[in-house]
Amino acid sequence: MIDAYQASSQDRVNAALERLFIAPAPELARLYEAMRYSVMNGGKRVRPLLAYAACEALGSAPEHANGAACAVELIHAYSLVHDDLPAMDDDDLRRGLPTTHKAYDEACAILAGDGLQSLAFSTLIDPQLTALDAETRLRMVSALALAAGPAGMVGGQAIDLGSVGIKLDQAALEYMHRHKTGALIEASVQLGALASGKATVENLQALNVYARAIGLAFQVQDDILDVESDTETLGKRQGADIARDKPTYPALMGLEQAKHYALELRDQALNALRPFEADAEPLRELARYIVKRRH
Amino acid sequence: MIDAYQASSQDRVNAALERLFIAPAPELARLYEAMRYSVMNGGKRVRPLLAYAACEALGSAPEHANGAACAVELIHAYSLVHDDLPAMDDDDLRRGLPTTHKAYDEACAILAGDGLQSLAFSTLIDPQLTALDAETRLRMVSALALAAGPAGMVGGQAIDLGSVGIKLDQAALEYMHRHKTGALIEASVQLGALASGKATVENLQALNVYARAIGLAFQVQDDILDVESDTETLGKRQGADIARDKPTYPALMGLEQAKHYALELRDQALNALRPFEADAEPLRELARYIVKRRH
Repeated sequence: MIDAYQASSQDRVNAALERLFIAPAPELARLYEAMRYSVMNGGKRVRPLLAYAACEALGSAPEHANGAACAVELIHAYSLVHDDLPAMDDDDLRRGLPTTHKAYDEACAILAGDGLQSLAFSTLIDPQLTALDAETRLRMVSALALAAGPAGMVGGQAIDLGSVGIKLDQAALEYMHRHKTGALIEASVQLGALASGKATVENLQALNVYARAIGLAFQVQDDILDVESDTETLGKRQGADIARDKPTYPALMGLEQAKHYALELRDQALNALRPFEADAEPLRELARYIVKRRH
Repeated sequence: MIDAYQASSQDRVNAALERLFIAPAPELARLYEAMRYSVMNGGKRVRPLLAYAACEALGSAPEHANGAACAVELIHAYSLVHDDLPAMDDDDLRRGLPTTHKAYDEACAILAGDGLQSLAFSTLIDPQLTALDAETRLRMVSALALAAGPAGMVGGQAIDLGSVGIKLDQAALEYMHRHKTGALIEASVQLGALASGKATVENLQALNVYARAIGLAFQVQDDILDVESDTETLGKRQGADIARDKPTYPALMGLEQAKHYALELRDQALNALRPFEADAEPLRELARYIVKRRH
């Protein structure tokens, strides 16, 4: 069931994203192409899925969250483009294709990333994509800017870069993950909920507990898979993170304890959704899926 | 008189900016330091001045434009950090100090720039700095995102990079400048005007004609100074732009004609301000100063 939901979310957000990359002048064609290349890359669109599912959990049609879904994906895409740069992770491939700075050049990749961040804000508040009052759209801008910025995602990347060769304990590891990937996952759920036009303070709090738990569960499961999977299933060398001396949950707490922790986080996420009706089923399915997935 | 106004604008915006770089956690200290280093660098704060002066031109105290002033300066600062990177202009010095990637490292400079862009949006809508209704603050977000993004400043940088070794005609040169520097100058004036809480559609249109004219005048005068000044006054080698085969106004239209064009643009700017009262005097002074300055 989550597969079908994921596929329809992916189609929905891709259709909305596709319209954003039409260059307003021929002089800007290459920049817009590079931005398009960075976004329309076959990504799974987990963050848009969360935005749509949160919007539905509050009883609104997922289309209401189109602005939110595009915005979080644009922020995610820009962060990958900059992360892949030679001065950062120096990756040549992403999803089997050349990274943006390889397909274009470094300067173009820096600018495409910068442009995608601005575009995220323009798109979020576009009344065609987020048909809501100014007050709510402004709350969404505030949540996105905070989650994307130095106290959120960018801060997490800085902590991650600064921790190379340093042994992190569990608290420090979670602090890093909560910023680097957690902040944008939490924002995806919050923006989707706000996009429903029906979110109460209690709804937003409960959904934040949910988002925080699944964000962490996803990371723990990733670390488990890194240890357990063979190279073929996972697509990267087994134990790659441990080999690079990156701190992982299995390394910190042992494999069995890490598995137990992942299930505990799933249950935290499901408990947070108790006040919600059947409309929250996609969010529940996703929580169950995260700790079951094999790649 | 413009000197005193510039000094007071600088002090006002610096006091507001200074408060933005307090790291929320010790893990984030280096990132926040790098952002602070990139912004608190003795810059002239021309864009904040424009925001304050536009706000005053509509009869509101300049303090109302603190959010606008900070936001445009943060966008400007981030663009310089990324511009200076080895993959872009590869500059080691800015205002006589090491550029951010030299003082820190490239990865940190990329992230500091990214963080400054998000921070610009958070700061712009901070009700403590922009004490206005949601509708107006949302219009400000929209204007800033458009000016900073791929159809604005980032687009201009992409065009500039793409035009190395290509002969631009006057129309193409103006198109590039209008995006690369003009978009943010226009946004500074628009945001300052909106921050007054009193801007009419006619005000905004007139101020946009003004901003467009002074943005271009500034560029033309820059090109003239590059030809005329000796190295000592200007702080860079005389004729540096021509040596690098960058298209300039004197090269395109001749020195005398370029001087005439700068004065024509000043007059366009002053004409656009005719409907305004004495409150617009700082804007007028700036227009006069731009074509008179020697460095």
